[in-house]
Amino acid sequence: MQFSIKHKDISARTGILETSRGAIRTPAFMPVGTLGTVKAMSTDELADMGADIILCNTYHLYLRPGHDIIRDIGGLHPFINWRGPILTDSGGFQVYSLSALRRISDEGVEFRSHIDGSLHFLGPEKAMEIQCALGSDIAMAFDECTPYPAEYDYAVKSLELTSGWARRCKEYLNREAENRTALPALFGIMQGGMHKDLRKRSLEELVDIGFDGYAAGGLSVGEPKEEMYDIISYIGPQMPEERPRYLMGVGDLRDVLVAVGNGFDMFDCVMPTRNARNGTLFTSRGRISIKRTEFKADPSPLDPDCGCYTCRNYSKAYLRHLFMAREILSMRLNTLHNLYFYLDFFGRMRKAIEEGRFSSFKKEWDVILEHGD
Amino acid sequence: MQFSIKHKDISARTGILETSRGAIRTPAFMPVGTLGTVKAMSTDELADMGADIILCNTYHLYLRPGHDIIRDIGGLHPFINWRGPILTDSGGFQVYSLSALRRISDEGVEFRSHIDGSLHFLGPEKAMEIQCALGSDIAMAFDECTPYPAEYDYAVKSLELTSGWARRCKEYLNREAENRTALPALFGIMQGGMHKDLRKRSLEELVDIGFDGYAAGGLSVGEPKEEMYDIISYIGPQMPEERPRYLMGVGDLRDVLVAVGNGFDMFDCVMPTRNARNGTLFTSRGRISIKRTEFKADPSPLDPDCGCYTCRNYSKAYLRHLFMAREILSMRLNTLHNLYFYLDFFGRMRKAIEEGRFSSFKKEWDVILEHGD
Repeated sequence: MQFSIKHKDISARTGILETSRGAIRTPAFMPVGTLGTVKAMSTDELADMGADIILCNTYHLYLRPGHDIIRDIGGLHPFINWRGPILTDSGGFQVYSLSALRRISDEGVEFRSHIDGSLHFLGPEKAMEIQCALGSDIAMAFDECTPYPAEYDYAVKSLELTSGWARRCKEYLNREAENRTALPALFGIMQGGMHKDLRKRSLEELVDIGFDGYAAGGLSVGEPKEEMYDIISYIGPQMPEERPRYLMGVGDLRDVLVAVGNGFDMFDCVMPTRNARNGTLFTSRGRISIKRTEFKADPSPLDPDCGCYTCRNYSKAYLRHLFMAREILSMRLNTLHNLYFYLDFFGRMRKAIEEGRFSSFKKEWDVILEHGD
Repeated sequence: MQFSIKHKDISARTGILETSRGAIRTPAFMPVGTLGTVKAMSTDELADMGADIILCNTYHLYLRPGHDIIRDIGGLHPFINWRGPILTDSGGFQVYSLSALRRISDEGVEFRSHIDGSLHFLGPEKAMEIQCALGSDIAMAFDECTPYPAEYDYAVKSLELTSGWARRCKEYLNREAENRTALPALFGIMQGGMHKDLRKRSLEELVDIGFDGYAAGGLSVGEPKEEMYDIISYIGPQMPEERPRYLMGVGDLRDVLVAVGNGFDMFDCVMPTRNARNGTLFTSRGRISIKRTEFKADPSPLDPDCGCYTCRNYSKAYLRHLFMAREILSMRLNTLHNLYFYLDFFGRMRKAIEEGRFSSFKKEWDVILEHGD
C-alpha cells in the first residue's frame, strides 16, 4: 500500500492511497457494508457513483455467515461481487456497542452474540485471522473502544490494552507473511478517551510499533461535539504526516469538515444509508424529510442541483409516495441519492483543497448543513 | 392499438400488440407494479430484462397517492419513470379481495379502504376516470369478481352486473373521445363463475359491446385446478380470434401452459415477485428455497443455465446469507432472478410456438415445474 499526498491547504490535504485493488482518492468516504452489502445498493451502483472503497464489519461477518464460509468462496470480493478495496474493522467497536456480557482480559474479549446470545471470543489474533480470511485490503488492529465518559484510570488501562493488542496484531501479520503473499495493510487505532495526554500517549505507542495508517477510535460515542472537536484538532495534526489518517465512525459532514481541516483523510459512517431508509435526505439546500405533506403533489426533483439517478428521474411526490407505502424502491432511491450526495461532497471538498479554498468551502457548507427539518 | 397474430401452433399463438408506447410480444407476462413500482425493481431493470409491459393497480393508486396527484404530474409514465405500455386493472378484483364492507348496487361498489377504513366508491365511470387520469395504455372494464364457490343465481346476477358495467365503461370512453386524443384501449372482463353456459353468455355479451381485447376474470380465486382448467379450455378457443386474450391473475407457469395451449395471450401475477421476497426461486431445474442449510457454503450460482445478473455474479451461499440477514439486496437479487426467469420462459415459449413445438415444450416444462421443495 502506497500513500502519496497531492495537495495541501493549511492542514487539509488530498492524496492517493494505492492498493492492489485500486486507488482511493482522499479525503475518502467509505460506504458501510456491514454484512457484506451496503444496505439497498448493488456493488455496480456503488462503483458507478464513485465509491473507491467500502467498509465491512468483521464482527457481523464472523457471526453471519462466518469467515470460514467467505474464505472458502475466495474472500469477500468474489462473495459480494466488489472489485475495489475493502477495509474491515476489527470488531472491537461492535463488541463494545452491540454485544451483551463483555468479559475483557489481556487475551481478548468474551462476549455474547447480539443475534442469538451464543458465546464467542475475539482477541487480536482472532480478529486478524478473520480479517485475513475475509481477504480484506485494509485491516484494523483489535482495540478496546473506551466508553464515554471514562475515568482517567479506566482510560489508561483501556489504552494500554489497546496498545498491547495492536502490537500482537502486527506480530500476527508478520508471522503470516512467511506463508502468504496477499496480506492486508494494517492500521492502528488510537484510544485515550477525552484525555489529550492519553490520546498523545496512545498515538506515540502506535507509531512506535509502526502501522500503514493510523485511526482515531472512541470518538462520536456520546460525547458533546465540543469535546470531540477538541480531540480531533489536538490529535489530527500530530498524526504521522506521511500515513493516511482515519477518523472512525464519524460521518456528520460538519464533523467531517472539522476533521479534514485537521488533516484527516478517511471516514466511514452509516448516516447517509440509515437516514435514507428513514426518509431523511441530504440536499444542496439542507436536509429534507421526504414524508412531509407539502411534497405530496410536488413534481420537482429532490435536489435540482444533484446529478444522481434519483434526482434525474423522479419527483418528490413519487419519493414521498414510495416512502409512505414502505416500498423497497424507496430505500433504493433514497440510499442511492444520499450516498451520491456524500461522495459528490467529498469530490467537491477534494477539489476545494486542490484549489486552495478549503476554508471558504467549509464556511459555505457549515451554513447549508445547518438547514433541515 | 393493433393486434396481429404471427404464428399458430394448434390453439397456441404468438402475436404483436402494438401500442403508442411500444410493442408487446405475446404470449406476454406483465410484472405487477401494484403501487407504481414492481416491488424491489427499478424500471431500468425491468426494461433490461425484456418486460414489454407492466401492470399497475387502480384500486391501490386511487387510495395512495391518489389519481389526481398522478394526473397532475403527467400520468403514471413520468411519475414512475416507465416508458413502455402500462395496463391498469379496474379495481374490481381488489375491492372484492382486499376491502371490507362491500355494498354493491347497480351504480357500483361502496367499500372501506384496507389501509384506514375510510369509505370509498368505485363504479364503471369512476374506474374509467381513474384509469384515464393514470394515463393507462390498456384499461380494464370495471367488473364484479364472482366469488368461488358461487350459486348459479348469484353468478347470473354478477354476470349481468358486469356486462352492464362493461357497456358503461365503453360509453364513458366514447364520450371522453370527443374531448381527448390519448385514451386507453379497453378490455372487457368475462365472469360467470365455474358455469360454462354463463361464461359463454358473458363472453357473448362483451363481444356484442365490442372491446379491444377480452379477459377472463374470476379464475384462480380458490377453485380446484381441474375446474379452472375446464373453464380455460372451454372458453379460451371461443374468445375472438383477432383480439388479445388475457387471463387475469394466473401466473403459475403450469397454468400458463394450459392457457397458452388454449389460445390465451396475456398474463399477470405476483407469484415471481412475492415468492422472490419469501426466498422461493424458480430455476431450470425446479423451485429452490434459498434458505436451505445445504446452500450455506455453496459457491455455485442459483441456476447455472440462467443469464440474469444474480446468477452471473453471485453464489447460492451469498444469496442465502442475504436472505437470512433480511437484507434489502436479497429481495432485489431474488426478484430480479425470478422475473428474468419468467420473462425468459415466455420468450422460450414464444419461440417454441413459432417453431411448431409448443406441445413438446409444454411436456418438458410440466416435468420441471413439478420439481421443488
